[in-house]
Amino acid sequence: MPELRRDPVVGRWVIISTERAHRPSDFSPARAARRGGPCIFCAGQERSTPEEIWALRPDGSAPNTPGWLVRVIPNKFPALRIEGELEPSGEGLYDRMNGIGAHEVVIESPEHDMTVDRLPVERLAVVLQACRERILDLAKDPRLEYVLVFKNHGEAAGASLEHTHSQLIATPIVPIMVQDELAGGLQHLKIKHRCIWCDIVRQERQKGGRMILEEGGFVALCPFAPRFPFETWILPAGHRSDFEDITPGELLPLARVISRILGRMAQFLDDPPFNLMLHSAPLRARDLDHFHWHIEIIPKLTKVAGFEWGTGFFINPVPPEEAARYLRREAPERPQ
Amino acid sequence: MPELRRDPVVGRWVIISTERAHRPSDFSPARAARRGGPCIFCAGQERSTPEEIWALRPDGSAPNTPGWLVRVIPNKFPALRIEGELEPSGEGLYDRMNGIGAHEVVIESPEHDMTVDRLPVERLAVVLQACRERILDLAKDPRLEYVLVFKNHGEAAGASLEHTHSQLIATPIVPIMVQDELAGGLQHLKIKHRCIWCDIVRQERQKGGRMILEEGGFVALCPFAPRFPFETWILPAGHRSDFEDITPGELLPLARVISRILGRMAQFLDDPPFNLMLHSAPLRARDLDHFHWHIEIIPKLTKVAGFEWGTGFFINPVPPEEAARYLRREAPERPQ
Repeated sequence: MPELRRDPVVGRWVIISTERAHRPSDFSPARAARRGGPCIFCAGQERSTPEEIWALRPDGSAPNTPGWLVRVIPNKFPALRIEGELEPSGEGLYDRMNGIGAHEVVIESPEHDMTVDRLPVERLAVVLQACRERILDLAKDPRLEYVLVFKNHGEAAGASLEHTHSQLIATPIVPIMVQDELAGGLQHLKIKHRCIWCDIVRQERQKGGRMILEEGGFVALCPFAPRFPFETWILPAGHRSDFEDITPGELLPLARVISRILGRMAQFLDDPPFNLMLHSAPLRARDLDHFHWHIEIIPKLTKVAGFEWGTGFFINPVPPEEAARYLRREAPERPQ
Repeated sequence: MPELRRDPVVGRWVIISTERAHRPSDFSPARAARRGGPCIFCAGQERSTPEEIWALRPDGSAPNTPGWLVRVIPNKFPALRIEGELEPSGEGLYDRMNGIGAHEVVIESPEHDMTVDRLPVERLAVVLQACRERILDLAKDPRLEYVLVFKNHGEAAGASLEHTHSQLIATPIVPIMVQDELAGGLQHLKIKHRCIWCDIVRQERQKGGRMILEEGGFVALCPFAPRFPFETWILPAGHRSDFEDITPGELLPLARVISRILGRMAQFLDDPPFNLMLHSAPLRARDLDHFHWHIEIIPKLTKVAGFEWGTGFFINPVPPEEAARYLRREAPERPQ
């Protein structure tokens, strides 16, 4: 059973997950992800995965058979487990909790050699719909406080399987990074009576230097103080705290913006490894005036080293104004 | 000129450092560090580096010539620059500051193929002495608030030159991670009237499962909630907030503890990439009851991916009790 542990000084939680363990001798920086299909995420391999939780099957095919376009399954090596009661406990200075949560995989395409930037936007919209429906379902579980949707692309960004997929991890605690954003947003609201992300969109529209595109009610921009070169945020132009409140009509425009950004990164930056994270409000704190859902995309072009780990400062060699200028260019048409 | 920028939501500062810039097309995940000597850090290459700031020269040789054992130079590609006045400015929601600071390199050995774990402890003690003297000197500059000493070993940990070296970066702002530790330490002091790190040492001594070794007034342990497999902390057993107050007689025992830990990691974990960071109290807040200086060593055996970047949670497949059991074993003797 995985275990959640809290650092007594800074309050950061970690997941000690021995089920994902390797023996110490197994750690090798050179360990490579297997390349080439078919893999267990491919069409036709449905019996090799845990039973599906959700799927879009336009042909009405049976669960766990081919015929799906997007398929959600439990992670075979979950960081947290759904079974059991939450049991927080103490040990002197320390706090721990059994590792209750959920860990699911959204397989974004039945084809092994598809990439998310080449996925037709209609199908990317279904991926977003799948994420929305899974969040709404997980929210019914009173033990869970947060769902993070994220995507790792490329081995350097932590992807261990190359078949295109996203993941959801539901946690019994609101993550410290979201807590920090909530605290910052609340402080701004208290002083200014405005949402800070709405203010950011307003200021970026006026100045323009860091805006990449605005389309269908969504904005893509390079933030003022990016941790990583070409870091990009995507957010609704109007105030919305909960991603799961997205309407069916907004899925396609959002998919289009994500697709444009990932397509430009892939073409202009030579298919960089990247992480994509969706920050929505906590499950038990909806309709907040001081939180605004957003997607963060961080290409992994620089190494995170001792200075970053020791300070929380990040050294970024590319000003966001330059990154935005680069990403504003249209990518040439490619065959789907 | 590098620039410091503050994220308006979470207050995180980043350094936009175009002097270290590459053109976007230069980013290639495959870009490798040059291997093999001699390099500009080697004995005999002193004229290829900026002029030295400090050196131990047992033979009384002249600055910027061979004959040194440890040599400190300004970083040729500094993240922050020493010249100029601090000029904080605002731009609507945003805050920025010109990138004043210092960035120095401590070359730990004149030999290209030496590694820090094989360095004789007497020479490692000189490296620590060099760091101490540089901190004391930088502290005289009223523009500077903090000095982080850190070491990157191995390309995956961000080392761009393989010749063994550490770095110091002095910042005009106390880093957010140190602020978080200060806040956690202060909260504990207010409630318990004790230093939280002293409490950690006390509890670990009693339980023993995470203690690696204790020797010469220093303790090495695996923390209760480690972010990374085999993460190790080294700290003075007694309360001390400022590393730079270390006495000459303590340098050798500290060097011995660091050397044992790095030696065991190198031998048992197959020379892993790692980062080492020294957290001491801020330059303008010395002799604190609520801060306790410590060294954090994080081997980079796992990838940091979207879940970690999106939540601040870390997934660690190796419980610290298991890591400590592993690291308590003596490494076999090796030729120096």
